[in-house]
Parts: sequence; structure tokens; C-alpha cells
Amino acid sequence: MNDFDESIERLIEYFRTLPGVGKKTAQRYAFSIIEGEKLRAENFASAIVEAKEKIHFCKECGNYTSQEICPICESRDKKVICVVKEPKDIIAMEKIKSYSGVYHVLFGTISPLENRGPNDIKIRELLNRVQQNNVTEVIMATNPDVEGDATAMYIAKLLKPFNIKVTRLAQGVSIGSDLEFADEVTLERAMQSRREID
Amino acid sequence: MNDFDESIERLIEYFRTLPGVGKKTAQRYAFSIIEGEKLRAENFASAIVEAKEKIHFCKECGNYTSQEICPICESRDKKVICVVKEPKDIIAMEKIKSYSGVYHVLFGTISPLENRGPNDIKIRELLNRVQQNNVTEVIMATNPDVEGDATAMYIAKLLKPFNIKVTRLAQGVSIGSDLEFADEVTLERAMQSRREID
Repeated sequence: MNDFDESIERLIEYFRTLPGVGKKTAQRYAFSIIEGEKLRAENFASAIVEAKEKIHFCKECGNYTSQEICPICESRDKKVICVVKEPKDIIAMEKIKSYSGVYHVLFGTISPLENRGPNDIKIRELLNRVQQNNVTEVIMATNPDVEGDATAMYIAKLLKPFNIKVTRLAQGVSIGSDLEFADEVTLERAMQSRREID
Repeated sequence: MNDFDESIERLIEYFRTLPGVGKKTAQRYAFSIIEGEKLRAENFASAIVEAKEKIHFCKECGNYTSQEICPICESRDKKVICVVKEPKDIIAMEKIKSYSGVYHVLFGTISPLENRGPNDIKIRELLNRVQQNNVTEVIMATNPDVEGDATAMYIAKLLKPFNIKVTRLAQGVSIGSDLEFADEVTLERAMQSRREID
């Protein structure tokens, strides 16, 4: 490794900055670049620079976009807002093809442990949107963990005076999974939220 | 995903060209670029272009290098040649800090199944090096699989007339592994090559 060329080392180092990439994987990536076509390397490089240059957050909802307002805010029903923690959560939610509302990215959750209070995430912006757009429903889709639950509760309380529907994604055992492997908290929640079969 | 921005899609696509990278992983990589510093994206991009531009194969041994002759060929004992299948195998072998000889990359192994004969890999070049440098030992370090073994045998036969030592990496159970999980071929080979304890 020490007799290795500087420009390979540098490329390996950069691949290692990607999430979850260790030394071996970074090496494999680097070799794939070196052994691949020159044009691919050039296009790859320009795709990185271009994405970083063009993509920013939608002024309305916080989604990734290259325009001022993202295509979702541009075209969909603004009366229903789905609140998520991070922009990438929008991609996950968009798998539900039937959802026709818009989103609101909080850019974090309330976390006393990490010294993050309500003013450090985009709650005020959410309240403004609720007021301005005659919103009828806010769906809290923060993660089903302690911080996500607490943040959802907190925002639900703030929205009380607006007299609108505030909902939370259902929590329970996931479809197609095996009960045997479900953790106790999930099972308990699934039991509490059980529904009558009709 | 369809409402997704074109420049993110393009970046995700390029990350997917890396070995073993699926859609989810490529997305995570792309988001990491978008959420990271601008300078990092630019340096990452230039590292890709630079590595591809500068790195080629050493004229002598086939190792990756940015010079004409790689640092290993430049500085080490040319009388011992370790023969490997690919340039990246050199990195693996270099973990043995005590090896002071040089390398020879075959760029493949003989494979009738894939229509690759002795003339399709760098065997002639190896013979030339053996002749020119008064080589005393050739270590066959092709992979311990059918093709690697066959290629090692074939080359060993060609080297017979030179009257030099031709060796093969020892094959057996790997250090620190569990016998329980060793496959039968490895165990058989380890049994055949067993050594007396003294």
C-alpha cells in the first residue's frame, strides 16, 4: 500500500468519505474507475460537481430540487402536508404512489440529548404553511423512534389551535415479516393499536 | 423517484456503475455528496479524473503506476518474480512486508471456458523477463482455484528449461479460521500438504 501511487491513494481516500465505505470497498471502487473507460470517469466526475452545484433545498418544503420550488410543491395538493425528518424520507414516502399531498422537511427532530430544541428545526415554517394554505391535514411521518414520536407529539400540540386533522403513520408489525423476529416494543404497539376485523 | 431531479438521478446512476453498488447504496452516496461540502465534491471529482488520467500499467510488471516503471520494479530485487493474475493482487501480496522481489501481472488466467489461451495473457513477457534478468525464482501466486492452478502448472512447465526454482503459494486452512467451516477441497489440500512438526 505504501508503494502505491499518490493519485490512487487520493481517489481511495475520497471514496472512503462515502457513508459506510471502508478501505477495501474504496479500493475496489478506485480500481473500477482506473480500469474503466476514460469517458465514464469524466462523466462521473462532472455528475458529482453538477449535482452538488445544482441541487439545493426547495424553498417551500425542503425537498432536494434544482428549481426554486420542487415539482411536488409545484403540482400537488397543498392542503395535506406530510411532515418528515430529512429530505431523503420524501423518497421513501413517494413509494406510496397514491399520496397526492405535499411534504415538509423538519431537518431534524427535537433531541434534548443532542441539544436540539424546537427552534432548531423547521417547526415555525410548518406553522406558517399551515396558516397560509388552509391545510386540512398534517401527517406526522417522523421516524417511529423516541425522538420522532416526541417531535410528532410536540408539533401535534402546537397544531391544536388550528383545528385541523393531525395524524401519525400507523405503527405495528411490518407486512411480510415474521412475528418471531419482531421486537417487543413493536409487538406491544401493534397490540395497543389492534383493529377489529370486519 | 420519478419526481426526482435529473442531476441527482444522473449521479445515482454513476454510483451504480461501481462494483457491488445497488440502487439504495447509490442513493446514499449521492445524498452524501449533495449534503456535503462543495469543496469535497469538487476534489472528489478531480480525484476521479486525475487517477484515470495519470494511472496506467508499469511497462515492466503491469502494476498500476503514474510513472513509466513502478516504484517496486525501480527499487527491488529483480531476481525473484511473483506472478499474479491482476494488478490488485499486488496490493494483497504487498501486505507481506518481508517480500523483497518484484511482480509480474498476467492480466488474466488461461481459461478454455472463456476462450482465453496462453497467448492472451502476458506469459511471453514473463519468459523474456526471466531470461533477461538472471531470475533465480518464480513464485506462482495466481488464485488457488482451477484456472489459477492450471495457469501456474502451464507456466511452471514452460520455465523448466531455464533450470530455476518455480514455487507455488502454499494452500491449506487459513490461519485463525475454524476447521468446521473449511470446505472439503481446502481440507483435502491441507491434508496432502501436511508437514511434520519438529
